[in-house]
Amino acid sequence: MTVRPADSTAPRPGPVTRIRVRQVSGSGVRDRRDDLATEEPLEIRLTAGGESRTVAITMRTPGADFELAAGFLHGEGVAGAGDIAAIGYCTDADLEPEARYNTVTVRLAGSRLPEIPQLERHFVTSSACGVCGTASLDALRGRCAPLADTPRLTVSPEVLYGLPHRLRQAQGVFGRTGGLHAAGLFTADGTLVTAREDVGRHNAVDKLVGWALLNGRLPLAEHILLVSGRSSYEIMQKALAAGLQMVCAVSAPSSLAVDLAREFGLTLVGFLRDERFNIYSGTERIST
Amino acid sequence: MTVRPADSTAPRPGPVTRIRVRQVSGSGVRDRRDDLATEEPLEIRLTAGGESRTVAITMRTPGADFELAAGFLHGEGVAGAGDIAAIGYCTDADLEPEARYNTVTVRLAGSRLPEIPQLERHFVTSSACGVCGTASLDALRGRCAPLADTPRLTVSPEVLYGLPHRLRQAQGVFGRTGGLHAAGLFTADGTLVTAREDVGRHNAVDKLVGWALLNGRLPLAEHILLVSGRSSYEIMQKALAAGLQMVCAVSAPSSLAVDLAREFGLTLVGFLRDERFNIYSGTERIST
Repeated sequence: MTVRPADSTAPRPGPVTRIRVRQVSGSGVRDRRDDLATEEPLEIRLTAGGESRTVAITMRTPGADFELAAGFLHGEGVAGAGDIAAIGYCTDADLEPEARYNTVTVRLAGSRLPEIPQLERHFVTSSACGVCGTASLDALRGRCAPLADTPRLTVSPEVLYGLPHRLRQAQGVFGRTGGLHAAGLFTADGTLVTAREDVGRHNAVDKLVGWALLNGRLPLAEHILLVSGRSSYEIMQKALAAGLQMVCAVSAPSSLAVDLAREFGLTLVGFLRDERFNIYSGTERIST
Repeated sequence: MTVRPADSTAPRPGPVTRIRVRQVSGSGVRDRRDDLATEEPLEIRLTAGGESRTVAITMRTPGADFELAAGFLHGEGVAGAGDIAAIGYCTDADLEPEARYNTVTVRLAGSRLPEIPQLERHFVTSSACGVCGTASLDALRGRCAPLADTPRLTVSPEVLYGLPHRLRQAQGVFGRTGGLHAAGLFTADGTLVTAREDVGRHNAVDKLVGWALLNGRLPLAEHILLVSGRSSYEIMQKALAAGLQMVCAVSAPSSLAVDLAREFGLTLVGFLRDERFNIYSGTERIST
């Protein structure tokens, strides 16, 4: 797989933007410098056999853009490990310099673009019978089988208790202030493998899965995913596609996140903080 | 404007889903009942002059679905106050009963569907010169003028300090547990007008704006919007389209949220909690 850098003379957005801000409190008003999480659009283009198409534009925090593109495509069922031939920033001369680091082109190994009508609707496929949670799960069943029982991951409560602290430690000083969502990948003994951050919580997970895909680490069956916020249908869908057996979140799950976990046999943990947690699905993987 | 109920015999998803959960802590393991925020897809269909088209499918918490559809279309620049002739759940006999409360049809007053290519990409328009924050703001300029200076909203710090508590009070017992994002609309003296909740933070804002649209309350120039989480480009875009002059958030803004606020002259407040806040743009509307 080829990785192409962009024109190095173009301005490159960083993950943090420095600004001036006015701070107001009981003790008065003062102007000072502050850091913000950068939010910029990323356009993901697919190319194969001479055809080219924009498949998504997502607001994201710059950094790990190739991983984000690869992880997004994997979560949508468009690109598996062997499907990506090259990935790089767009070198189209028509692009304004400001846009060069905001456009990633993924070249597929095949001779033509895949059919990807569902990308138009971002993530949920409509069907003749209408949309509902059950139909959303049915649509997933076409490309994600329920997890096999072996090899089964087993984790102790003590290992889970330690994960949120390790994820916070892995975030930069800035991320710890709460400006960014984080996602971390851990082994069954609680060792942090890698972590990613983004203004969008789905993006943080896409970056992690993209990292695994580009480094030949999929499926992630022996790992634990921890997200800093809530778990939703979309987070669980990405985890399922990456072969994860266990997803933990610092906050609450949605009803459809639990439905998906139960339907496909994933372990889903929520409210993992202060040495306690809830298990919503897959209790057999936690040695209580 | 006509509002149509769905077939009342179909199962209707509620905002809260009751499940069984296993709770683990230092003091042991116990199984108990728990409430989750419901997450179900909502399909928004537009119809005009005999044509019909699905323009979005979004994961949302059921409730205020007509407001969500109306607010979403307003934020995208598709439907203003006079454009909606009728709104109702889909009564299509082909729909499965489970899907009937997950499909909202908005009938426009005009004789044909508007051109809405940007909805395919969810919210950001790509251009020949590529995507970047500046291009995103340029695209907005076509349909949202910077705010005029009069009538100018002016708010005291003491009023702002009181808003987060009032928003939490307005949330149901469940929402206060943190399972849902909230958005509240306040007058300049800090009186709560109305509040909405959702698993998606953009949806909570869409529901508020849709409420205002369906009740003839737009533009919201004399109101304050408070969101329970962070402020992003998309939140600010919806606020701008609704004519708001002031947006407050309990957490951090993104860089592009600040860029948009400065470019269009909105007041943007962040980290509004514990009797302090930061002003990122539009200091002149806060009487410090």
